[in-house]
Formats: sequence, C-alpha cells, structure tokens
Amino acid sequence: MFKARMKADVLREVIAVVGTLVEEVKLNISPEGLSLRAVDPAHVAMVELVLKVGAFEELKATGGEIGVDIEKFREMLKLAKAGSSIRLNHDEDKNKLVVTIDNLTRRMSLVDTAGMSDPKVPNVNLPAKVVIKTDELGQGIRASESISDHIALIATPEQFELSAEGETDSVSLKLPKDLLEAIETKETVKSLFSLDYFANMIKSVGSAPSVALNLGTDFPVRIEFDIAGGEGHVKYLLAPRIEND
Amino acid sequence: MFKARMKADVLREVIAVVGTLVEEVKLNISPEGLSLRAVDPAHVAMVELVLKVGAFEELKATGGEIGVDIEKFREMLKLAKAGSSIRLNHDEDKNKLVVTIDNLTRRMSLVDTAGMSDPKVPNVNLPAKVVIKTDELGQGIRASESISDHIALIATPEQFELSAEGETDSVSLKLPKDLLEAIETKETVKSLFSLDYFANMIKSVGSAPSVALNLGTDFPVRIEFDIAGGEGHVKYLLAPRIEND
Amino acid sequence: MFKARMKADVLREVIAVVGTLVEEVKLNISPEGLSLRAVDPAHVAMVELVLKVGAFEELKATGGEIGVDIEKFREMLKLAKAGSSIRLNHDEDKNKLVVTIDNLTRRMSLVDTAGMSDPKVPNVNLPAKVVIKTDELGQGIRASESISDHIALIATPEQFELSAEGETDSVSLKLPKDLLEAIETKETVKSLFSLDYFANMIKSVGSAPSVALNLGTDFPVRIEFDIAGGEGHVKYLLAPRIEND
Repeated sequence: MFKARMKADVLREVIAVVGTLVEEVKLNISPEGLSLRAVDPAHVAMVELVLKVGAFEELKATGGEIGVDIEKFREMLKLAKAGSSIRLNHDEDKNKLVVTIDNLTRRMSLVDTAGMSDPKVPNVNLPAKVVIKTDELGQGIRASESISDHIALIATPEQFELSAEGETDSVSLKLPKDLLEAIETKETVKSLFSLDYFANMIKSVGSAPSVALNLGTDFPVRIEFDIAGGEGHVKYLLAPRIEND
Repeated sequence: MFKARMKADVLREVIAVVGTLVEEVKLNISPEGLSLRAVDPAHVAMVELVLKVGAFEELKATGGEIGVDIEKFREMLKLAKAGSSIRLNHDEDKNKLVVTIDNLTRRMSLVDTAGMSDPKVPNVNLPAKVVIKTDELGQGIRASESISDHIALIATPEQFELSAEGETDSVSLKLPKDLLEAIETKETVKSLFSLDYFANMIKSVGSAPSVALNLGTDFPVRIEFDIAGGEGHVKYLLAPRIEND
Repeated sequence: MFKARMKADVLREVIAVVGTLVEEVKLNISPEGLSLRAVDPAHVAMVELVLKVGAFEELKATGGEIGVDIEKFREMLKLAKAGSSIRLNHDEDKNKLVVTIDNLTRRMSLVDTAGMSDPKVPNVNLPAKVVIKTDELGQGIRASESISDHIALIATPEQFELSAEGETDSVSLKLPKDLLEAIETKETVKSLFSLDYFANMIKSVGSAPSVALNLGTDFPVRIEFDIAGGEGHVKYLLAPRIEND
C-alpha cells in the first residue's frame, strides 16, 4: 500500500536529481518515507536519495517498491501551479500509479522492478570536505563549458579551486577559506571529472543554497545537499577521470 | 469604404482566432462592424466571428468585403506597443489595405475574394452545454498531449470530463458541477475530437476567463467565447472523430 | 602594460558594437583610454570606437595594442552578475589576457595583430543629419524585415523616412520634424542600404536613447551614438547599395 500527498515542488526536486542519471528508477517506500539508489547507464555516477516522512503532507505506506518512468512525472509536474500539491496512489489491482494534481488525474503504468538491481554504494574514504555556495559553483561550471570537457577540483587547507584547461585558454574559480562555508583537509587533494556529469549534478540542486563536496586525489567526488527544506538528502558519487600525461 | 481604428489587442484576438484555422480570410465589413466565417483546409473545423461597432475606437464603412493575409497582420501586431491603437484604411484605387501603428505604415496587397466561398454554418442541435474556466481546460489539454492524439469530452448532469487514453497511461480532468460555471444536460453525452484542433482552438482564446462547450454524442462541439471585452464573439465548430472499436 | 577595471555593462556595450562586424579586433590602449577600428570581411561597413579613461573604474596603461577574440568576451560577460565589475590584465610574459569577474579568472590567448591593418576612415562629407530615438528606428527596421532585404533612408528639411519596398507590400516609417530630436538638411537626400547590416548596427546600440544618422544621396550613412554613459562614442559607416532600375 502506498498513498501520499506532497508539495509538487518537493517531488520536482526529487525528479530533477534522479533524472540527471536515469530515466527509470525504483522507489523504495516505507512508513518512514521514500528512498532510492540509481547508477547511470555508463556506470560513471550514482545517486542515493532519502525523503523523510516529514517531506510529505500525508503518507500511508506499508513498505514495498515501485518502478517509475521519470519523464511521466516531468510531464505532470509542468502542469502544477505554484504551491499546489500532488497526490500519489498505488492501485495494486491494476498495478498503476494514480497521480493527481488539482482535478487532473494521470494513471501511469509502472516499470517492472524485477530487472532493476539495488546498486551497492562503494565505501570510499574521502579526506577533504568543502562546503560551497551553489551559485558560485554554477558560475565556475558555466565558465568552463567553452574551455574543456573536464575540470579539476582541488582543495588545500586554505582554498578551493575549480579549474579547466583548454588548448589556448584556461579558467579557474578560486575561493579562499573565508569565501567558503567550510573547508576541511590536511593536505592538497586533486581529482579530474567529466564536466558534463558534474554540471548536470550541480544544475539539479534545487533550493539548497550550498552543497558539500567530499574529495580525495584521483578519487570520486561525493556531492551532498538537502532537498525538501531539510526533510530530504541527496548524495551523488561521481567517478574521477584519470589524467593522461 | 472602410476606415477603422481599434486597440491593437482587439485585432490580436481576432487574428489569433482566425489564424488557428486559415492563413487567408474574407472580412465582411459594414457600419455595424466586422464579421467572418472560415473553414480549415481539411474541412474538420469552422469559425464564425463577429466584432461589433463597439469594439472599434472609430469605424467608417459602407459595406463590402476584403480578403486579407493573416501572417501580415501577425507581423504588424508584433510591433505594437502595449495599449497602442492600429488604423486600417482601404485604398480602393490601388486595392491595398493601409495599416498604421504609431508612425509606421504598411501598405498590404489584398487577397482576391472571388474564390473564397462563404461557408454555411450547419444547423446542429447540441443537447448539452458546459461553461468552464479557460485555465482548467488548458491544463487538461496539456496533460493529454503526451498521451494520445485525441480526447473525449463527456458531460453528465453532475460532471464534465475531458479524458485521453494512451496505450499504457490515461489522463482525466474531472470537474464536478460546483467547479463549473454551468452545466446543462439531461443525459450523458460523449464525443471524441482531434486533440490538435481542440488544443489550438482553446489556445486562441484571448482574455475570456471562461468558454462554453456545446456537446452531443458523436456530434461536433461548438466552442463559444467573447473577445474584445464582450464587444465581439467567437463560435468554433469542430467535427467529431468516430471511435474505432 | 595594460591593467584595467570597468563595469561589465560597459564592456558589454563595446563587445556588442564590435561583434556586429568582426570576430577578432585589435584594441589600441593608452593612458587616455581604449580605441579600435574595424572593417567587416565584406568591406561594406566599418566601426570606430573610443572609450575614454572616465569609462574605466581603474586604468593603468603605457600604450600598445592587443588582439582579442570577441566570442571569448561574450562567454565571460554572460557570467557577470548585475552591477559587477570585470578586470583585465595583460600578462606580457605569457602574452595572455587575464580576465577576472568576482572569483573567476579566464586566461585568454591573444590574437596576433601583425596581420590586422588599421583601416583608414574615408573622408566623406554628408550633407544631412537626423537625430532619432533608437526605439522608433528599431520599430521601422523590424517592420521592414518581412518586406525586403534593403531599405531607403530619406531626409527632407521637414521629415525623416525609412522605407522598404516589397513585391506586393511596402513599409514606411515617417517622422516629421517635431517627432525627431533634430533634422538638418537643405535638400532631400536618399540612399539605399542593406537591411541586414543596418539592423545589426542599430540592435547593437546599448543604452543610448537616440542615435545620429548622417546621410547624403547614394552616399554612405554614418551612425553615431554614445556608450558608457557618454564616456565612449561609436561611429559606424555603412556603404550604400546602388539602386537597380
């Protein structure tokens, strides 16, 4: 059994995050809320998302899982007016998800979850942590897009840097300690990442004013931020690109 | 003789309505105002539009008809600033329509009306009438666009419904009596329509907050709404699609 | 040596003007400010631009020239927030231009100026001068775009006219003396111009509320306007099209 009501804006944040990596996803539902894990088709990135019961206006669930098509939610969410709520109701007899906004109802077929594995989150120990304004990071990403298809993220005890090296030009966003919300590292760490993946992840950050980046040297980056006004949390993990010399 | 001045916004409403079905139209002009009738090239839909003398800031006309190209008006209307007026003047010697906005004048060649017949409006008796908010209808249409290329309009004595059935998903907008401005029918009526035509017609509704739908079973729908702040009126007639079983 | 700080909006005006004609340009720098001259690849139009020292928030320059790629500046300017400043610093050792907005830095390779000649400004004596609101001119240009690929500019002692003649339709913007800021001519002058070039030049006018057109008969037009709140000035020269009869 799964019956829920939530602000359309909360579901919009979930869909933006998940839709960055996959087009279909398995939602795990329980009386405590909703959670999901997904890996992109190229196995370069993964996402772990948790939405606590406080993120819902109403939640009645026994526990179970349903497979959904992201694009169908995007279509419905376009129709939601500012401040409106969305209702989700699993019709178990017909195996449809009944999605309602105002007087409008869409009965969605579900995706078979049999073939969808639960990806395991690798246990990586990342020695550096930077908390940075989402806007600042976005500006650095946009500046890099005409320069290169990858970027370096570098943290020292005193500064965070995002840099992109092109054939003739280079771009660098440098934020000293006092312009960051936090920086914690004993040594200098540096890893390279696909700009495309990193940009899409940061663009999917909804209302969170800042994000945490957990970094190492030639290690994945873990990007963490809140959704649903703190009643939900996202962890992206993005594999590094190894530098060719 | 035809010389007129009107708000650009009034002409914009006329052009939006007519341009949904045809690219050229014959305008009938008299001292009482302007009227037109047009059928789309596929003969699926027709429009009847009347603009009373009160819709004009100034109107001097003896009576007659002129054939105009819709796209040329769209181009001129793009140049009108908010609140500005547009002047139309038929230069009979050169058979041009002189259209003026502010200090800008376009002399338009006219379309020969010899080959343009006056379509006859079929006399259909439609037993049901629903008056519905334009916004609500628009939301139902947009939700249907990813589902199917046709929709059903259904009226019962208690409720209006717009529904679209796809292969895996379905969409339904249900409005009970108290959420409608009016519903009048003794029995349940239902007809199917091309979503594309119906959507374009509803999108062409300008400032009217609500529209009237006149319906039967496997009958055309007549869509009526006001333009020009009540000084004009539009009637669309759209043929039904017959359901294949 | 060249080190400068200026409002991003001022640089945006310069880039819009120059980018209308060329993609690379040589900037002449001195303690008095910045100047440039450029001819478009088809040799139909040229631009002369001067930015006085008062247009800068800070300027340290010994004198010299640097060749820059317009598109790289467009990319950086997209990232500037409202009201922010941009810093330019010539790194002479590595021959790069270091461009900084907030905490973001782009190191740009420069364009070799060896092959870039300084175009000579032809000495043309234009007998008529019209000062006209930029908005009015823009409206006339947009109305002409669906009519023809060239326009006539006509000045008489009493009126300015922009007109476009198509096969079936014509457009005319007529401004009598009292709707112009100034008109000075003893006789009627008329020249034809490429609409495309003229439109792009007028679209590049930034904040200037009016422009001056200097005209003759079958002569080039010189278009002049201020940038940087009067601390900079632009002169475009556009060759006439000769009428075919």
